[in-house]
Amino acid sequence: MRYPALMTDLYELTMLAGYLDEGMHELPATFDLFFRTLPFRGSYAVFAGLAPALEYLRDLRFTDADLRYLAGLGIFKTKFIDFLRDFRFRGRVSAPPEGSLVFPHEPLLTVEGTLAEAQFVETALLNLINFQTLVATKAARLTVAAQPEGTVIEFGLRRAQGPDGGLSVARAACIGGVRSTSNVLGGQTFGLPVKGTHAHSWVMAFPDELSAFRAYAECFPDSCVLLVDTFDTLKSGIPHAITVARELRAKGHEMLGIRLDSGDLAYLSREARRLFDEAGFPGVKIVASNELDEEVIQSIRNEGGRIDIYGVGTRLATCQGEGGGALGGVYKLVRLDGKPKMKTTSDIAKATLPDRKKIWRVVEPDGTFHLDLIGHEGDSPQVGEVVYDPTNPARNKLLPSGVRFEPLHQLVMEGGEMVVPPESLDQAADRCAAQLRRLPAGCLRLTNPHVYKISITQGLHDLRGQLMQGLDGSSEKN
Amino acid sequence: MRYPALMTDLYELTMLAGYLDEGMHELPATFDLFFRTLPFRGSYAVFAGLAPALEYLRDLRFTDADLRYLAGLGIFKTKFIDFLRDFRFRGRVSAPPEGSLVFPHEPLLTVEGTLAEAQFVETALLNLINFQTLVATKAARLTVAAQPEGTVIEFGLRRAQGPDGGLSVARAACIGGVRSTSNVLGGQTFGLPVKGTHAHSWVMAFPDELSAFRAYAECFPDSCVLLVDTFDTLKSGIPHAITVARELRAKGHEMLGIRLDSGDLAYLSREARRLFDEAGFPGVKIVASNELDEEVIQSIRNEGGRIDIYGVGTRLATCQGEGGGALGGVYKLVRLDGKPKMKTTSDIAKATLPDRKKIWRVVEPDGTFHLDLIGHEGDSPQVGEVVYDPTNPARNKLLPSGVRFEPLHQLVMEGGEMVVPPESLDQAADRCAAQLRRLPAGCLRLTNPHVYKISITQGLHDLRGQLMQGLDGSSEKN
Repeated sequence: MRYPALMTDLYELTMLAGYLDEGMHELPATFDLFFRTLPFRGSYAVFAGLAPALEYLRDLRFTDADLRYLAGLGIFKTKFIDFLRDFRFRGRVSAPPEGSLVFPHEPLLTVEGTLAEAQFVETALLNLINFQTLVATKAARLTVAAQPEGTVIEFGLRRAQGPDGGLSVARAACIGGVRSTSNVLGGQTFGLPVKGTHAHSWVMAFPDELSAFRAYAECFPDSCVLLVDTFDTLKSGIPHAITVARELRAKGHEMLGIRLDSGDLAYLSREARRLFDEAGFPGVKIVASNELDEEVIQSIRNEGGRIDIYGVGTRLATCQGEGGGALGGVYKLVRLDGKPKMKTTSDIAKATLPDRKKIWRVVEPDGTFHLDLIGHEGDSPQVGEVVYDPTNPARNKLLPSGVRFEPLHQLVMEGGEMVVPPESLDQAADRCAAQLRRLPAGCLRLTNPHVYKISITQGLHDLRGQLMQGLDGSSEKN
Repeated sequence: MRYPALMTDLYELTMLAGYLDEGMHELPATFDLFFRTLPFRGSYAVFAGLAPALEYLRDLRFTDADLRYLAGLGIFKTKFIDFLRDFRFRGRVSAPPEGSLVFPHEPLLTVEGTLAEAQFVETALLNLINFQTLVATKAARLTVAAQPEGTVIEFGLRRAQGPDGGLSVARAACIGGVRSTSNVLGGQTFGLPVKGTHAHSWVMAFPDELSAFRAYAECFPDSCVLLVDTFDTLKSGIPHAITVARELRAKGHEMLGIRLDSGDLAYLSREARRLFDEAGFPGVKIVASNELDEEVIQSIRNEGGRIDIYGVGTRLATCQGEGGGALGGVYKLVRLDGKPKMKTTSDIAKATLPDRKKIWRVVEPDGTFHLDLIGHEGDSPQVGEVVYDPTNPARNKLLPSGVRFEPLHQLVMEGGEMVVPPESLDQAADRCAAQLRRLPAGCLRLTNPHVYKISITQGLHDLRGQLMQGLDGSSEKN
């Protein structure tokens, strides 16, 4: 079992025990997983982590060792431990396909089942979705910054959280557009292309740089990428690499590329390009690494840098930086025993959207995404209808003529079984790339991007209003 | 096997193949793993990750499936795949024990073996050490900020990188002083105390807050912690909790605590303390959560907050924030085939410290740490000797009289086998706590802390000077 059942916060278990004691564990419940703030001060997020999440739900069960451990904690009754023995997730899940662009307040997953099963899976789902969605989003930002001339490789294993963290990074990065990795386990597990060259220590292990380059080229004549900054990039590394490129060509091979790992990458890459072109090697690729992120990539390109491939490690594996670090996904009860539920609060930005919902991407005639619309389950939105900003109901607008409504969610699990065929990571990555092209102009800008609008229908707006005023019997106000 | 052999960057494999081709794979080599900059703009780091790293080294082997995968990549010769079949780590490792305070430029691990085995393990060692050391350091900062009245619980699973990331966080946090966790798998795996209460959804699942509290107290009469902010903390949550505390007492139980998860935690905790004290419940603990970190904890305490237990999730699991996000640990060749090695560079701050080394903690008569001293392997430092700042040789000082020299490293692996008995996480955590008390005054300050000094001996200073000037035949200058 890849994801242990005990991969959970203790409170999921104490709540479960409580619901069982109260006889509430089989009440039908609906939970939404969503976030309130876009990461990286950006205009979009890229949904990822669904396949692992569904695998977790499908395979969820407590082993005998788990049950012995829990019994030994001394806080649970035997009746509860027995209940866990046959505990499974047998509910239903709807979600967008991976690689879809997603936005604040809209459910990334809607989980329905008994209160017990739908509540228990909270921590694991957040763990699996939060981080992969964050990484896929970062990867998309990097890819957008590098395009059209450049591509990005994932180099983050050494800064990830263990083997698993490294795998999550490689998987989610691919969905966001970073389709190759240095992580061999990522290649083995997901079929991703694996890439890499050598370290400074390779060069230092030889009497001099040229011998080191020659030895590497001899071993890998058709996939030779040389790290040229061990001593002096322009005076030593690139001239030696050109020597080796000539020697390779004389033997019928072409050098693949060089890697720059320090210094002024814009300047060095321009010089490297010029030197290789002048020497008759316009096909040699220039790879760069060293604390890259989307801002650095953009500034290198603005200065005329000539980098073909950006290797991004730390900033992709940790997603650190302004507005990064973590996606604040939350998991909230929105319906119980047939009644809508909502966490009431004086701050409407923190209020949840109650009940079963539908989400549409509202699309303009030319295919551009106009806005995302969240409605109550029975709603059927029409052109000309008024829709509301979910955090500020005073802001409303009309759905313009000509738009069409594309449902964002599909049913992906029913009765605890997956009901859609598995997708390749490339399919998800293609979806992401296609959707990025359909965002309104300005959304892809790194600084102060255009804000893509999320709206709620009149029906959902009204339901929320009733619940907030306690007019509906099922409100939680007390 | 917990850590797959393919948990590595491709370049470790290409270099290995190259060394094999060149007949260099059995040259004796020494690598140091170290970092150059302290995380979180702090004055210390807490070493963690050693036990998993040694487990990785001891168990390292390629499975048949791994070899088939690598052969299928089409870049390696059959001879290399055969070589990997019997590949093991049979080298030696020295390191400080976990929970030791560590500082820039000093080796956290020194790995010796054949060039093949010592090079190959780079990525995995960095993966295992970088993140755990970062988290242990963050945990120590949180613990120092909360002490003496408060303690910290780790709540980060939902923001960690998969189950493994969550486990790394729980383990490393314990070493830094955060000795309990909400992560049940962390409890099961490491024997850590697991803690937790209930979510807002528990309260929302009942007709009203008081019923929800009563139900929870009935299930967990002796470990009842109530989340009091679902509606209104002071007007609803705390009065209801006091009602339930009275009902529990009437049945012979004492309520354990309440949890605050929003609002002005300094103010709300003072009010909560007052209300519970006035109601006759001075023993009820006040737990707080909600985007806490060491700065927030300090400011709550500065404002007279009365929090007993801080639950820290995101900021501990991701270590985001200024100077955080990742520990920049690197792994550098320092000796090969009996000759010292060093990456020469015009920037002395980026130059490595060559050759086999010894590290001493230089201790004042009262037990306070005076500085850390890095020497060449044969050095035997004396009081009165001149020592140098490793990044600025113009800064030197004399070792004062009365100090003693405590070696930082111990031999932990020999011939690929662990040679020290395993420690409990509590032992490592006790070591960390004891060492923090021995830092010079001002080192524990959050803002602009006193900088603890690292020095190198005259011997190491001279060796580096020779290598940088290319006076030594083994220099890499060309």
